Amino acid sequence: MQDSHARVDALEIYALQPIGVVRSTLRATADAPNQAFENAPSAQLDIDPAFEAALHRVQIGDELILLTWLHLADRDVLQTHPAGDTGIPLTGVFRTRSPDRPNPIGVHRVTVTALEGPTRLRVEALEAIDGTPIIDLKVAIARIA
Amino acid sequence: MQDSHARVDALEIYALQPIGVVRSTLRATADAPNQAFENAPSAQLDIDPAFEAALHRVQIGDELILLTWLHLADRDVLQTHPAGDTGIPLTGVFRTRSPDRPNPIGVHRVTVTALEGPTRLRVEALEAIDGTPIIDLKVAIARIA
Repeated sequence: MQDSHARVDALEIYALQPIGVVRSTLRATADAPNQAFENAPSAQLDIDPAFEAALHRVQIGDELILLTWLHLADRDVLQTHPAGDTGIPLTGVFRTRSPDRPNPIGVHRVTVTALEGPTRLRVEALEAIDGTPIIDLKVAIARIA
Repeated sequence: MQDSHARVDALEIYALQPIGVVRSTLRATADAPNQAFENAPSAQLDIDPAFEAALHRVQIGDELILLTWLHLADRDVLQTHPAGDTGIPLTGVFRTRSPDRPNPIGVHRVTVTALEGPTRLRVEALEAIDGTPIIDLKVAIARIA
């Protein structure tokens, strides 16, 4: 078939290799706030030393976009009640921030508060739990996150 | 070894399955602006029909965070001159928005301007080129992107 369905289905699968791991006092998703501004703690970003060069010029005060792999998420969920509120109608996960989604990538805006080693950053505030794999860091740009 | 280096290295590799593809008048990275606010065009998000339920309640005017897989990126690059400006010192890619990085995920903030089919959205503005795989959509939250 040459229709658009077949074209989309033909997309390649990519291998995502974590670049580090989150170290946090949050140990379970039940303890984690839904969003960072809901009293999330600071956290340590423990980056694989193989990527030390990619942290060059990161400094205290930097605002970064942190991408994580929400490894405990259910990848088969397509609809949910946002924020677990059954008073809100079932909504497609692509219109929510639910961790449960086909590719469970967390997008977090954090501020670097300390450089604790050549590949270890302290950031705040972060709602991801201890052990969450880190997959990318980017500098934040005001207009586009 | 039980040190932190070994611990980070032991992280699992994850399989990322695209959920759709970008359709754009931008055909080559040479034509693409660095950021969406630099005169990027509108684009079509062609989502795999298998994920139609995950788009439930998406509507015109929604602000979404779109995650893409920048499939033409060089995953071995760890440092770059931001925006290709050699007047700026070499910087770790984790402190830039360069597409070249270990896991080349694009983070884009877009506005839905039309629903062109059950799994086809028109959005603006988007600097990703035609054929770029889509890996996630989320509702934008002002404070965290």
